[in-house]
Amino acid sequence: MAAENNNAEEITEDMREEISEHAKKLVSELEQGHEQAFKADFDELHGYDQGQFYLNLPSQLRQQVIDWLDPSDLADVFDEIPLDDDLDPSELLKEMSPKYAAEMLDKMYSDNSVDFLEELNAHDLGMYLSLMPENDSQDIRELLNYDDETAGSLMSHEFIAINENDTIPEAMQAVKIAAEDAEQITYIYVLNDNNKLVGVVSLRTLMLANDELHLRDVMDTNIISVTPDEDQEQVAHVMADYNFTSLPVVLDDTLLGIIMVDDIVDVIDEEATEDYSRLAGVDVDSNDDNPLKAAAKRLPWLVGLIFLGMGTASVIDSFNGLVATAPILAVFISLITGTAGNAGTQSLAVAVRRLAFKESENIWKMLGSEILIGVAIGVVAGFTIFGVVSIWKHDVLLGVAVGLAMGIAILVANVAGAFIPMIMDSIGVDPAVASGPFISTLSDLTSVLIYFNIAGLFIKLFGGI
Amino acid sequence: MAAENNNAEEITEDMREEISEHAKKLVSELEQGHEQAFKADFDELHGYDQGQFYLNLPSQLRQQVIDWLDPSDLADVFDEIPLDDDLDPSELLKEMSPKYAAEMLDKMYSDNSVDFLEELNAHDLGMYLSLMPENDSQDIRELLNYDDETAGSLMSHEFIAINENDTIPEAMQAVKIAAEDAEQITYIYVLNDNNKLVGVVSLRTLMLANDELHLRDVMDTNIISVTPDEDQEQVAHVMADYNFTSLPVVLDDTLLGIIMVDDIVDVIDEEATEDYSRLAGVDVDSNDDNPLKAAAKRLPWLVGLIFLGMGTASVIDSFNGLVATAPILAVFISLITGTAGNAGTQSLAVAVRRLAFKESENIWKMLGSEILIGVAIGVVAGFTIFGVVSIWKHDVLLGVAVGLAMGIAILVANVAGAFIPMIMDSIGVDPAVASGPFISTLSDLTSVLIYFNIAGLFIKLFGGI
Repeated sequence: MAAENNNAEEITEDMREEISEHAKKLVSELEQGHEQAFKADFDELHGYDQGQFYLNLPSQLRQQVIDWLDPSDLADVFDEIPLDDDLDPSELLKEMSPKYAAEMLDKMYSDNSVDFLEELNAHDLGMYLSLMPENDSQDIRELLNYDDETAGSLMSHEFIAINENDTIPEAMQAVKIAAEDAEQITYIYVLNDNNKLVGVVSLRTLMLANDELHLRDVMDTNIISVTPDEDQEQVAHVMADYNFTSLPVVLDDTLLGIIMVDDIVDVIDEEATEDYSRLAGVDVDSNDDNPLKAAAKRLPWLVGLIFLGMGTASVIDSFNGLVATAPILAVFISLITGTAGNAGTQSLAVAVRRLAFKESENIWKMLGSEILIGVAIGVVAGFTIFGVVSIWKHDVLLGVAVGLAMGIAILVANVAGAFIPMIMDSIGVDPAVASGPFISTLSDLTSVLIYFNIAGLFIKLFGGI
Repeated sequence: MAAENNNAEEITEDMREEISEHAKKLVSELEQGHEQAFKADFDELHGYDQGQFYLNLPSQLRQQVIDWLDPSDLADVFDEIPLDDDLDPSELLKEMSPKYAAEMLDKMYSDNSVDFLEELNAHDLGMYLSLMPENDSQDIRELLNYDDETAGSLMSHEFIAINENDTIPEAMQAVKIAAEDAEQITYIYVLNDNNKLVGVVSLRTLMLANDELHLRDVMDTNIISVTPDEDQEQVAHVMADYNFTSLPVVLDDTLLGIIMVDDIVDVIDEEATEDYSRLAGVDVDSNDDNPLKAAAKRLPWLVGLIFLGMGTASVIDSFNGLVATAPILAVFISLITGTAGNAGTQSLAVAVRRLAFKESENIWKMLGSEILIGVAIGVVAGFTIFGVVSIWKHDVLLGVAVGLAMGIAILVANVAGAFIPMIMDSIGVDPAVASGPFISTLSDLTSVLIYFNIAGLFIKLFGGI
């Protein structure tokens, strides 16, 4: 399937190949100075592909693109460049003249230009802002004030807002004029004479409405909105529940901006990756091709936990006399620490997700429930171990000791797994910071304490095990 | 803020309270038979809130709603009911007459009605389909054929497709007519005379275009699409990259359906929860308020792993003579198994994510990289342990033995953590099935094997440790 034959292309190897064919053509046009051909062919690409093409160019050819494209055209490209750790926006901007860069940033959707600007140092930020029209730089300064990961930091100012007294044809005309700049035209926001948000109307409703009506007659007054300081995870839930493609950000009935669903898709993806990374104790999103760098990123957690693990080792060491008397005790160390660690990881994961969704407002109820779960799991696992050990070693007393230790160790790990993220949440730390490896290493410590104390008690009481 | 004053409401406690006030009013209208008042008040709610209200009603009051609402109105409500494990669609449908239910299912967006229908038994499914108009039931049968978690299972048939030879005013008129039923009107798909997909045009472009032009003049022929058998995770990536709000599903240039961004939001959420659950070895999404039920769901993994852990115990048991000779060996069991388990969990998580994103096509390169990472981490962690143990126990030989065992155990766990999901992926099993607890329990086994063999060798070679 060639691009020329106007056929639909599937995202397949074919298509990727085609994109790279197209990219090669663009590069040769850049190198040979074919400005018009380049512009026409570049225009055929989707925004995302334009962004990827631009990023993958050598700096020198990017200069050529900058020379040929208007700041407003390049703004469309930059709107589609995803900002991640591997990208330094200030380097990209320094390839342009300050005036060009400022104009381009100004033409981008405000949420995107803010994402770029907040990565800059204070000097560069000030420079670019001072080169923008006063109004626009004020707009952006305002957006820069919102905390990262809040609704305010996600919103853009490019929405369509129309007075409620407009007739349907007037409103349609206003939408047409605004469509050039707005980030979306699916929802039109309706303001009263005091510029307060009083309703929302979909373009679909507008198109189907009778020409004699006014906006106030067709608008939906039941507005679902978020405040600018709302956490982005909560914003994502609202958007996911209501299936909107944009959501207004409102404070005191004033419409401050809108959040688009594609930004929410990114938020959900980011938050999920973050939670997953923390549960594993490694940043799964860093695409380091260099194994040494990747190892360097994983080591801090591992080495830190080795020192916590040394605590466990010294607990066992302090019971060394006991192990010398009853070497059989060593056999079950890893079974008990491993199983308790697994149970702790389970309850940690459940607690982190519950806290993220704020499903359970009542922390004590959640903790009570986790204790009951711990007891239930501890009893079943303890009896299982009791049965297996008694039969295997023909020693009921040993079975009781190991089973009892296992049951209690699981209960403790379960409660710790749920309690630690709750404490973190209540002191304002993201509960997802408590990693799986941390909980299981911590539970190793409590588990061996419980195990050897119970074994010691049994030996004292029954004179042996 | 009361609903009556037309002001914007933030999603806050206030708002939730208001929704529940509104719900109470609706319930009393249902109980007292105030049909008109109920219809008007119900209509004020957003689809999602209507769905939640309906689900939370006692069955008897749902019957009242069914009596009062047309199948097509109730279809709008059902379109917003999220299907999860706790919901049995067949029970909801059995509260209606078969004819009413069939008509309602027919009026829902086809992707949603398929989601409901595929939960039914063959008898009920056949009954409802036979009660629908022939055309529609055929449409649905076709959608039912697609595998779960593919693009085909996500798509709906309610798109707008117009011939390329239509003029702009003709197209606008067609959009207006289709707007009533279409799931979205942001993108209009363009067909040639053979009904093949040749382009896509946004409503925005259509609104701004000159009336004299034809669709073929303004359409974008660079179509990003997916095939019906594409995995839903890949579809989500395409949508997230390109920031579209809908994506066409195409086979042999024929437009089969469209996928909406809100379904993709759900997919991303689901897939993330699934991966997270598997890493933790527990379904974090089940909202069981009953602790015993929750415990019952967590136990299979735990108890299964206890039996794997018994393997580790019997390995240690087979070295019991060694432990009796050198009880100090028991001290480092949990440190070595714990650290290797942590390293294994890290590499597992990285591998699962990489495979999900197909970032690395070359499995051997990925494995080679993970071996190098394992060596690097093993060397650093091994030297750390060597230092700590040598100093703590004033015993360099013990330090060397424990450090060496640690290094090798980490290397093995690292490689296993990456290799197991890769094998699963290559035999067609979702690599996320390999859970963190499984890898760490498995690595307990390999770690003690390595540890005691090395310790035994040292004792044999040097006559003690």
